[in-house]
Amino acid sequence: MLILALDTSSIVASVALMEEDKLIGEYIINHEKTHSQKLMPMIDALLSDCERKLEEIDVIAVAEGPGSFTGLRIGVATAKALAHGLDRPVAGISTLDGLAFNMPYCEGLICPILDARRSQVYTAVYKWDDGVLNRVLEPMALSIEELTEQLKNRPEKIVFLGDGVKANESFLKDQLGNRVLLAPQTVAMQRASSVAALALQKARAGQLDNFYGLTPEYLRKSEAERQYDEKMKRCDQDGGTQG
Amino acid sequence: MLILALDTSSIVASVALMEEDKLIGEYIINHEKTHSQKLMPMIDALLSDCERKLEEIDVIAVAEGPGSFTGLRIGVATAKALAHGLDRPVAGISTLDGLAFNMPYCEGLICPILDARRSQVYTAVYKWDDGVLNRVLEPMALSIEELTEQLKNRPEKIVFLGDGVKANESFLKDQLGNRVLLAPQTVAMQRASSVAALALQKARAGQLDNFYGLTPEYLRKSEAERQYDEKMKRCDQDGGTQG
Repeated sequence: MLILALDTSSIVASVALMEEDKLIGEYIINHEKTHSQKLMPMIDALLSDCERKLEEIDVIAVAEGPGSFTGLRIGVATAKALAHGLDRPVAGISTLDGLAFNMPYCEGLICPILDARRSQVYTAVYKWDDGVLNRVLEPMALSIEELTEQLKNRPEKIVFLGDGVKANESFLKDQLGNRVLLAPQTVAMQRASSVAALALQKARAGQLDNFYGLTPEYLRKSEAERQYDEKMKRCDQDGGTQG
Repeated sequence: MLILALDTSSIVASVALMEEDKLIGEYIINHEKTHSQKLMPMIDALLSDCERKLEEIDVIAVAEGPGSFTGLRIGVATAKALAHGLDRPVAGISTLDGLAFNMPYCEGLICPILDARRSQVYTAVYKWDDGVLNRVLEPMALSIEELTEQLKNRPEKIVFLGDGVKANESFLKDQLGNRVLLAPQTVAMQRASSVAALALQKARAGQLDNFYGLTPEYLRKSEAERQYDEKMKRCDQDGGTQG
């Protein structure tokens, strides 16, 4: 089974090719955010360098979110288009699951945090148990204060990674002391190989999807949606007072 | 500080670009062993995709071994040529250290094993302690039986990775039981980003080298050298009996 995996959920663009348990290739570029220009050429280059054809791919995997709204739309739209054109199943993988999988068999808790703007982070908490990665807290959008409140009662060390770490590093160390570890930069950002590995698990569990059902997992409404909702509410209220 | 890192010590070709603590890009190709054809084009593509020039590189890092003799010579010769041409320092990084760094904050022991042929493996043993990776056993070439003897007395779980795992998996599980964990394939093979991260540590510790001093770390003599030594020994003996 040949899996093509994409991750454009952050400033990093990453593509990977995995055949069963073998990682055949992976390209990672963390340089300016032009995913729409770079993603297809990266896929082309990876396939060509690995002497594979698009038609040989069995499953299209993609980081479905949470993360950058624009990035997610580019990744998910590309995955949908490829799956549609090739008539293949898709595997949507949580960006947070993918990040946690960057730290195999890590001791203690793993806590990916992604910048969600508006003073929030997207996060979830994970723990390895005998070679299996389990979620301790489900994906959520909340303030860093709310997150540290939830982590204060746990005894374990906590490894933080993701693009939300830098802005919150001193607050985390203030609140959680020497239980805080930061992941090395080699694994701190999204990697399509982790998305591919989790997609392989889904495929083996018979949990692949049709591309029609694949949608970005924003975890929160976009700015445009929020503004639209507020406008509608005002219209309703105006209509209510006038009616 | 901009670091270009190369790893051609196994069947995997990998190049990475790291600026201080930021991984700017990484390419990994695990597809047939044509490092001599692929390495320079991979470096070119990585630099071009990251909009960097060769002249901007401050340090050339390379996996110096142990590993495939031919692979090591290609990697080390390329690193030397680049360092000479650009007049930059080099950082030779142990392949085994690099593999262990693929598993940040991993619980228990980390044991990379590389196929050394002639019924031996190249290996070393590592342990993370409060965010720092330490060697528990120094790099060595020995039989898998000798390695498991040394590991039997330890209480920890042991994560195995590297190209020597597959052939020895059942023996390891036989000897060490459920203390054996295999690294996921996403991190089981060499990654130039780990070489870059360890080179950054060396640079900060003032431990960079001139390219003249950089040599592959074979850990053992090559087949050609062994044959030459034996031939010389026979010549000496013949000379001795004739003299």
